[in-house]
Amino acid sequence: MDNRPIGIFDSGLGGLTCVKKVMEIMPGEDIIYFGDTGRVPYGSRSADTILKYTRQDIRFLETFDIKFIIIACGTASSAALPFIRSEFDMDIEGVLDPACKKAAALTQSGKIGVIGTHGTVRSGKYLQTLKRIDSGLEVYSKACPMFVPLVENGYTDGEVARLIAAEYLQPLKDAGVDTLILGCTHYPLLRGVIHDIMGEQVQLVDAGAEAAVYAKQKLEEKDLLCSRGYGAAQYYVSDAVDNFTEIAGMFLEKSVDGSVHLVNIENY
Amino acid sequence: MDNRPIGIFDSGLGGLTCVKKVMEIMPGEDIIYFGDTGRVPYGSRSADTILKYTRQDIRFLETFDIKFIIIACGTASSAALPFIRSEFDMDIEGVLDPACKKAAALTQSGKIGVIGTHGTVRSGKYLQTLKRIDSGLEVYSKACPMFVPLVENGYTDGEVARLIAAEYLQPLKDAGVDTLILGCTHYPLLRGVIHDIMGEQVQLVDAGAEAAVYAKQKLEEKDLLCSRGYGAAQYYVSDAVDNFTEIAGMFLEKSVDGSVHLVNIENY
Repeated sequence: MDNRPIGIFDSGLGGLTCVKKVMEIMPGEDIIYFGDTGRVPYGSRSADTILKYTRQDIRFLETFDIKFIIIACGTASSAALPFIRSEFDMDIEGVLDPACKKAAALTQSGKIGVIGTHGTVRSGKYLQTLKRIDSGLEVYSKACPMFVPLVENGYTDGEVARLIAAEYLQPLKDAGVDTLILGCTHYPLLRGVIHDIMGEQVQLVDAGAEAAVYAKQKLEEKDLLCSRGYGAAQYYVSDAVDNFTEIAGMFLEKSVDGSVHLVNIENY
Repeated sequence: MDNRPIGIFDSGLGGLTCVKKVMEIMPGEDIIYFGDTGRVPYGSRSADTILKYTRQDIRFLETFDIKFIIIACGTASSAALPFIRSEFDMDIEGVLDPACKKAAALTQSGKIGVIGTHGTVRSGKYLQTLKRIDSGLEVYSKACPMFVPLVENGYTDGEVARLIAAEYLQPLKDAGVDTLILGCTHYPLLRGVIHDIMGEQVQLVDAGAEAAVYAKQKLEEKDLLCSRGYGAAQYYVSDAVDNFTEIAGMFLEKSVDGSVHLVNIENY
């Protein structure tokens, strides 16, 4: 047993899809969340900048006495974590491995689609990880750079979201994928639109939620789950505390008033 | 006469609409441009963060021996410059005053529309500046937060841009404005769509271009124009040199190869 908190971070709000799942399946755990709202989005930045920002985010979480880090950001998980894991003396898991394992287990046809940011797709890490699990898998990747702005501006339904999603997803439909990894933690907020376009027969893998499930397994294996029945969460952001408080409250369906704090991430 | 360069900055690429105008009307001037591509967009950030980023951008440009700064960013011009101008011992002009003067001179009906980012509209500075010029003006402001992502992702035409623009601009059409200030330097790239929706009778004011015209007047008044016939530009960005080089080249219709450099803006 280990009652120290779990650290979770994302470039912004998307990682709350992972927080929600952690609260659901590990309700006793304390959580320290960091959302880099002052530098969001990560997905359109260069590989070097994504590396730098990810290192700072991890160093900030390390200042708390945490037992485990979940990178609930598709871009940082794929474009940074594989390159910097060895720099840190800490258990760190991203969304990459959990999502790939789930997708490989689900697919019948062996054709898997991956959608994510430019940074995620450019890294090629989803393709590489799926091929390592099963070299016979066919993987089709597609960057969807407008999805994060759509979500951050509330366009999660309606004609605009549908038009953009239809354009991005057409090549994956044409390829005949039967499983689609939502490789960015913002994308589950567009699940309805994505589901409508891809059709009933295509299974959607929520990378953030899978990371929470995977983290629970890891913590169980190492006997690091907490011994309490009810945990608490503290949220840190690099900009606009009020804005985050409002959206996080709606998203998590409970008030986070008083537990959101500002941090100067450039100091880490 | 003063042959020192002019400094120009924006949160990203939008300020190139101002650079282009400066090159056209003051072809002899040397230019130092900074695009904060590692922290774009500014318009969705808090007032405090916009202030901090703007101070860093000015401090960086001050490290060159420049004679004048143009803030070619609608958000920094309205949400930061009015509050920090007195901190710097340097001639600094934003897009706010030039655009307001132009719009006030153009309007027949006295009804002026202003579109910009959340940060710009929240600052209330366009309204305040127009009212100071003529208290009888009626001003209608509208934040258009999806316009920057549309431009940065190449959606400057077509159905998606039209749908979003129609939604944002409808209240301004309903109000009967005859002059519309494009208060963000990204927006001229959506000029065709905006023009189609607003109609022939509405005059569009390009804040970035007006800032260039205004800067020329100021430099003439103070006898600070350069004495050469042909100037050169150097570009500094806080991320992704290659990406900027490609887009800036297309935008300015000439190669900027070899003149784009990376800077760590957090050090300023």
